[in-house]
Amino acid sequence: MQLKDISSPKDIRGASVKELEALAEEIRAVILRQVSEHGGHLSSSLGAVELSIALHYVYNTPSDILIWDVGHQAYAHKLLTGRYESFFSMRQRGGISGFPKRSESVYDPFGVGHASTSISAGLGFAIGRDLAQKNNQVIAVIGDGSMTGGMVFEALNNARQTKQNFTIILNDNKMSISPSVGALSKYLSKLSVKHNSSLEEFGKFLRSIPEHIGGKIREIMESGKLALENMANPGQFFRDLNVRYFGPFDGHNMQELIETFNSIKDLPEVCLIHVLTQKGKGYELATTNPTKWHGSDPFHIEDGSVIMEKPRPTLTTIFGKTLLTLAKQDKTIIGITAAMLDGCGLSILKEDPDTAERVFDVGIAEEHAVTFAAGLACEGFTPVVAIYSSFMQRAYDQIVHDVALQNLPVVFILDRAGLVGSDGPTHHGSLDLSYLRTIPNMVIMVPSDENEMRNMIYTATQHKSGPVALRYPRAVTYTNDIRTEFSELPIGKFRTVFKGTKVLLIGVGFVLAKCLDAAGVLEKKGIKPTIIDARFVKPLDIEAYRELFSEHKVVATVEDNSIAGGFGSAIAEILAEMKNPPRLVRIGLPDAFVGQGEIDELRDELGLSGNGIAARILEVY
Amino acid sequence: MQLKDISSPKDIRGASVKELEALAEEIRAVILRQVSEHGGHLSSSLGAVELSIALHYVYNTPSDILIWDVGHQAYAHKLLTGRYESFFSMRQRGGISGFPKRSESVYDPFGVGHASTSISAGLGFAIGRDLAQKNNQVIAVIGDGSMTGGMVFEALNNARQTKQNFTIILNDNKMSISPSVGALSKYLSKLSVKHNSSLEEFGKFLRSIPEHIGGKIREIMESGKLALENMANPGQFFRDLNVRYFGPFDGHNMQELIETFNSIKDLPEVCLIHVLTQKGKGYELATTNPTKWHGSDPFHIEDGSVIMEKPRPTLTTIFGKTLLTLAKQDKTIIGITAAMLDGCGLSILKEDPDTAERVFDVGIAEEHAVTFAAGLACEGFTPVVAIYSSFMQRAYDQIVHDVALQNLPVVFILDRAGLVGSDGPTHHGSLDLSYLRTIPNMVIMVPSDENEMRNMIYTATQHKSGPVALRYPRAVTYTNDIRTEFSELPIGKFRTVFKGTKVLLIGVGFVLAKCLDAAGVLEKKGIKPTIIDARFVKPLDIEAYRELFSEHKVVATVEDNSIAGGFGSAIAEILAEMKNPPRLVRIGLPDAFVGQGEIDELRDELGLSGNGIAARILEVY
Repeated sequence: MQLKDISSPKDIRGASVKELEALAEEIRAVILRQVSEHGGHLSSSLGAVELSIALHYVYNTPSDILIWDVGHQAYAHKLLTGRYESFFSMRQRGGISGFPKRSESVYDPFGVGHASTSISAGLGFAIGRDLAQKNNQVIAVIGDGSMTGGMVFEALNNARQTKQNFTIILNDNKMSISPSVGALSKYLSKLSVKHNSSLEEFGKFLRSIPEHIGGKIREIMESGKLALENMANPGQFFRDLNVRYFGPFDGHNMQELIETFNSIKDLPEVCLIHVLTQKGKGYELATTNPTKWHGSDPFHIEDGSVIMEKPRPTLTTIFGKTLLTLAKQDKTIIGITAAMLDGCGLSILKEDPDTAERVFDVGIAEEHAVTFAAGLACEGFTPVVAIYSSFMQRAYDQIVHDVALQNLPVVFILDRAGLVGSDGPTHHGSLDLSYLRTIPNMVIMVPSDENEMRNMIYTATQHKSGPVALRYPRAVTYTNDIRTEFSELPIGKFRTVFKGTKVLLIGVGFVLAKCLDAAGVLEKKGIKPTIIDARFVKPLDIEAYRELFSEHKVVATVEDNSIAGGFGSAIAEILAEMKNPPRLVRIGLPDAFVGQGEIDELRDELGLSGNGIAARILEVY
Repeated sequence: MQLKDISSPKDIRGASVKELEALAEEIRAVILRQVSEHGGHLSSSLGAVELSIALHYVYNTPSDILIWDVGHQAYAHKLLTGRYESFFSMRQRGGISGFPKRSESVYDPFGVGHASTSISAGLGFAIGRDLAQKNNQVIAVIGDGSMTGGMVFEALNNARQTKQNFTIILNDNKMSISPSVGALSKYLSKLSVKHNSSLEEFGKFLRSIPEHIGGKIREIMESGKLALENMANPGQFFRDLNVRYFGPFDGHNMQELIETFNSIKDLPEVCLIHVLTQKGKGYELATTNPTKWHGSDPFHIEDGSVIMEKPRPTLTTIFGKTLLTLAKQDKTIIGITAAMLDGCGLSILKEDPDTAERVFDVGIAEEHAVTFAAGLACEGFTPVVAIYSSFMQRAYDQIVHDVALQNLPVVFILDRAGLVGSDGPTHHGSLDLSYLRTIPNMVIMVPSDENEMRNMIYTATQHKSGPVALRYPRAVTYTNDIRTEFSELPIGKFRTVFKGTKVLLIGVGFVLAKCLDAAGVLEKKGIKPTIIDARFVKPLDIEAYRELFSEHKVVATVEDNSIAGGFGSAIAEILAEMKNPPRLVRIGLPDAFVGQGEIDELRDELGLSGNGIAARILEVY
């Protein structure tokens, strides 16, 4: 049995365990080759190979519903479900997605990308099945990292509403992206020590002692029933949520997995199967440093060295270094992140003894992160909450209700704002300016270069009268000339880059560079536009903008945020209330979900390039 | 000791338990009088009287931090903390808030209103205390209803990060607003049966049996340590989260509460004290029907009858009846709500045998509600998720990522949109049009009268190609003339109410009535405006709007949503890109948090009245 011959999971259902094990090795090699050539999520997918095979072997997919939480671990699943041919196009423009996606395959019943959704969605499928009087299986596979998201508990609390089997596979590799944090993670570790032996011994002992005493034990234990149940079932935590716990099992033992799934699948209960896997399994470099190998750029398989070194540090690094400098001076600064200590650049604060105790990784728990920050702000601290733009969406209500309503000085750092590239529509940070702009009291800053970014981080931590949000894209820095001094920026004021005539170009953030490109194109047509660095999306210096507008014929706003409600909308609000306003051209991401691809490629396609911007202006000039 | 003499909790700290008990009775009478005269949250506050007294008696507030989750149960707390004089102004314009509020009192360290925030915020205070090397206490009081919100688990999972005491009081009255749902609720009920007796008996038994056998038991149990811990602590669920469980205790027994708090407060641990209370305690009508008496209009204390009967049914009732009719015909329709079966009008579907099994109350768990709905939609159902506007904020990411990105036909019903009145800033639904408008694929409908509302609910459930949101205010119906037939509305099309000249008035929803009032005022000045019922906020028929705009001199948009990013912004986006557009006047809620007060009173103040609208138009006309 070879991978190239597998067009659907049907093709593996007659195989022997030995053949399946050989298949697992082949799949590992293919995943390793794909990620080494094109980048992607390596270690999670390597860890879930046997799991993927055993699930498709036992369950009758796609009639049986199989949902992968987050879905970055589903590469083997893709290979088993007719996507071998397209596998090497994964995460590229026009290729298959790096995550399960409904429109891509009937084997992907639910699209994923953000964490902790699988049990809620799975329960929807399970209840739907019950109501339609069908009897297919529903399985949600979730990592221990995703288990820290509150939605999971909301879902578990409701899971018993289904009347048939609903199986949750807890794929426990002791990691989310960074090592898992919190009490639940410790609890799962305790469970990982099997209790069977001591329980067996206890049973033997019960049978061995004199009848009248043994009877007494049973009687007493019966009256304290909970306790007895606890002894028989080490996963009491889940049982208390009315979920039946099984495990832990070896997630790389094909035979054990198949037997377990077979013996559980027809129980009319909510079952949680605890499976232990190793992140990076089969590629030694990844098993020894799974965080580094969570998501990877293309690399040489032999030694793990990346093929293209980044020419300059990333903006994430700039943020981390800047905050470290500031936090060493200002002892009120606290760093908070949600399972993204590395991803958000806070690791260096965790490693520095001066700041280590002021950094909190709360796990995948964005809601808690924000309200926790609000509490700290009430105590006089300056919390800096660093979360990717698209994940900050999880905490919209907490930003509104717990921070902005009380006007607390919490700083929100939104990394990966705008287009993110190959992770695609679930991960693009295209809405933040729009949703943050709806929030009263919020100050929104967008830096257009590295030094402005440093000054904005400084300004944000100095701003003690209310919340500040600061967003920047996934990018390497454009310059090595990083200054060391800080200067505070006046809140709400834009910066004039170049004073021209007739056309006014307003750039929001790093896309300012594209405005300069556009100016070059326009100059060839005899137009010398004024160029503004917006710096702030909220508040706006309306008077200064009005004056500027009255001096121009065409205003163009350029942002890597949705045009629905973004910065361009804020400008439209000002213009539409003016007498004889200039024409506005709003240039940004469309009011639609944008696919995956190289960031530059996508930007060009969407008109966020010098030529694209110039063309839009010339249309109305 | 009389309530009027208590200016701060210091005044009760020398009192005897007997005096405190008498005080409790006086407080109950005052709360009952206040709510009977002015309306408010009755049953929760009556249930927490002894708890409030005992907490302020034992803890050194305000140095010790006391946070009430949601805060609708904090009336006794208000009375004990210097707000007796202002108590009868509660929930009125210019009066004190119905919830704890930072700006109101030093005894309110954290403002609340939405559920499940207290443990996250409390942990912020606790960590802040640790870092500042202070040693005050931090206490979060949370109801069993709020415990179903996922944030609580995110917070519990992180709670052990504090190095000193952090006490969580679980105020368990078996209710959130409706009876609590889910597995956790069942678990808490099991705990409510005390296990002390059986454990004591077991201990006695251990000591009584022969040494060599007793030793063996201990040895085996030691090896299965978890099990032994479980037996010693019935609150294992919490202990598994590294939280020490105590209880349950009688929440109306002053002596027991005081002793418990005193014995626990210095333990350097995260402690959860499980307290059983009765919602409505002391007012029999409220204890027998706590859901009805959760929030109440003014009533006669003798028989509970409301003082002012509502002249007509509420919009909530219209929604419930309409959905019932539709759900009887269309078996794919599923009703989903988050602890608001009554509040959102779904009770009648739960009571009808035709539809009962298609209604799901998931508890306070908005995130789960939405993704659960997404799963059901994938199975071919038409889920209708009914949640108050300001609480839907909790599920912003799930609406974006799980519903809109996959373009699933989920219907979102946002009740309590716009101003809600005396519940104030935490509950006003002033952002929904703004945040929903940022979401690709979303259809947003806003009915301007009851019959349009019925047709929109019908249209929404017929719209199988993507998500629909429909929002309406907290209001009684304006007419008794409710039709019975349904007609499908064309998506995105506005309705022309009156064709006038020069001025174009666009009303969004029930505020259309205010546009008609404004037209009356303008007519006296010789202006006959065109009046449009927007019907849709997204998508918009841009061509038709452009044509209309080109025929007018002034366009005014009127909405009870924030002007930051709301419908007016959508119109500004169109106008600003036109050549020679008319002037726009955006009339709506300010980009600021609006206080409490009667809805009409607030609307007038904010210019959302016929006169206010007319005046704004005349300014630019």
